[in-house]
Amino acid sequence: MPTKVNRQWCLASRPEGYIQPTDFTWKEAPMPTPDDGEFLVRNIYLSLDPAAWGWMQEWISYVPALSLGDVMHGITLGIVEESSNAKFHPGDLVYGMLGWQDFAVTEGKGLMRLPKTSSVPLPAYLSVFGLTGLTAYFGLLDIGKPKAGETLVVSAAAGAVGSIVGQIGKIKGCHVVGTAGTDEKCQWLTEELGFDAAINYKTESLHKSLLKHCPNGIDIYYENVGGALFKSVLNLINVRSRIVLCGLISQYNVMGSGPSLASIITNRARIEGFIVTDYYHRAQEAIADLQKWIMEKRIQYRVDIVEGLENAPTAIGKLFDGSNKGKLMVKVSEEPL
Amino acid sequence: MPTKVNRQWCLASRPEGYIQPTDFTWKEAPMPTPDDGEFLVRNIYLSLDPAAWGWMQEWISYVPALSLGDVMHGITLGIVEESSNAKFHPGDLVYGMLGWQDFAVTEGKGLMRLPKTSSVPLPAYLSVFGLTGLTAYFGLLDIGKPKAGETLVVSAAAGAVGSIVGQIGKIKGCHVVGTAGTDEKCQWLTEELGFDAAINYKTESLHKSLLKHCPNGIDIYYENVGGALFKSVLNLINVRSRIVLCGLISQYNVMGSGPSLASIITNRARIEGFIVTDYYHRAQEAIADLQKWIMEKRIQYRVDIVEGLENAPTAIGKLFDGSNKGKLMVKVSEEPL
Repeated sequence: MPTKVNRQWCLASRPEGYIQPTDFTWKEAPMPTPDDGEFLVRNIYLSLDPAAWGWMQEWISYVPALSLGDVMHGITLGIVEESSNAKFHPGDLVYGMLGWQDFAVTEGKGLMRLPKTSSVPLPAYLSVFGLTGLTAYFGLLDIGKPKAGETLVVSAAAGAVGSIVGQIGKIKGCHVVGTAGTDEKCQWLTEELGFDAAINYKTESLHKSLLKHCPNGIDIYYENVGGALFKSVLNLINVRSRIVLCGLISQYNVMGSGPSLASIITNRARIEGFIVTDYYHRAQEAIADLQKWIMEKRIQYRVDIVEGLENAPTAIGKLFDGSNKGKLMVKVSEEPL
Repeated sequence: MPTKVNRQWCLASRPEGYIQPTDFTWKEAPMPTPDDGEFLVRNIYLSLDPAAWGWMQEWISYVPALSLGDVMHGITLGIVEESSNAKFHPGDLVYGMLGWQDFAVTEGKGLMRLPKTSSVPLPAYLSVFGLTGLTAYFGLLDIGKPKAGETLVVSAAAGAVGSIVGQIGKIKGCHVVGTAGTDEKCQWLTEELGFDAAINYKTESLHKSLLKHCPNGIDIYYENVGGALFKSVLNLINVRSRIVLCGLISQYNVMGSGPSLASIITNRARIEGFIVTDYYHRAQEAIADLQKWIMEKRIQYRVDIVEGLENAPTAIGKLFDGSNKGKLMVKVSEEPL
């Protein structure tokens, strides 16, 4: 199963619009060998995230900017296969920024270790217990500050982050309205996840539907999308409302445009940018709550697993056309038995 | 001097672009008479503020929305001439929302009383000790939270609010960069007010000049303008920077457009809308500091007084073409001796 080469997807061009398969080049590199203090990780799951768009840009600052030809950044869950590092041993499960490739050699900086035996399925560590869950948890609770009785609107609500945000909103007693791009997703939100309402943004009038489902205005907007929905929401926000600016996926192809902010002023609203990595030190706090809520069946999550590293460049397109169902990831190699 | 009629400017149409003189109708109404509990105020100075644009809109919420034909909203400083109210007496100086007219009858709700004898010239109450000063003070200190050594950029820096913001920024130890539309204004900022740099946004490249004058990035942006400058600033903001969204005067004619917010995310920045009326209860705190700073010659202010209520509709255009020099107001009638 371990190939003798290290298959890699490298950055071929920086996307101006959505990410295209042609933005990546396939490379077969020699198998890397760990030096003293290093160890070899075989990637099992590769997480595909909208943030990848930013990671491909030259101006990105919170992760090392890639040069053209570099192995694409990506968060993976992997297993240690060889080690010259005293702290990591073969068989250890690790989680971190190990890239779009079969194997990585690392000193372990920035890697998290996962429990070897756990009832948690491995893909959960890339979804509800990974960045996805933390993004939902801290973005909503720390920036959005929901109070019982408030109205929470979540965009991309059937997405990996949005679906957790809405469910935490319900746990906190909010009136929760989500938007999604198909009737099936909307149905999932209201019938399975307990959202109070779901709006199909492709077939309904955003403004009319928001008016109908948010009769008391909007107190919190958890923004994953940008664009037309953001504008409609700004028309209905309440005084001292909070907008959690987590993503603007619909605008990644129209940089430079954006909504009018006049409503932010008249409503003394706050828009706050947010990156989950700032909350790593509080991960356990989130994971404890999330585990409890999953046990209590108050939170559900879905994963959408694509087989094969070779399919990563096309699979990531699902994030931008909305066709993924749950947290998107690539299965790079087999799980340990 | 008191005319027998009450001359008024009434709302004729709601501006879509900038305010036009044709948005107002002149009316000569009968002199109002105070009922029990009311008193008659003769307006002396009428403040002209960019916020007037919002006050003319149907959707405005934090002041009563005007119907077409209503007397235009405006903050005035006036003198009580007749009173059937136990708390207000002829000769009292008052300050509040008494409109674009010679006279107003009121019960005094929302009015502030000014000291009858004071070394402060009356126009100061509509500028540095009025909404202008409070807007600068609370917007910068409470929302912007300046720390010594940080870089503060102020748009419309030669304007009534911006000039006070920059000077308070200097008092707090910031590196202060302002933008203005003429070389003369820029010179005033650096030579008279102590700004570290001033950028003429009409003749200089915003991006290059900001890069040059903000070598450590931008920590606080006090936004009065919107548009191109906002976009350039967003390219240079630091992590955890604060954007005080006070006005977007350049965008009042292009509602619906606005800057891209991607940079807000990567920088975990905060944009917070802000309306000075929320801080009225803390006005004394600001005024005490401002008075002290003026006494110490650490703050200067300018007023631009236009003679005659009849000129208000054309005078307000100076706010939008940048031709006013200092806090703009209209002299409606004579000061008391």
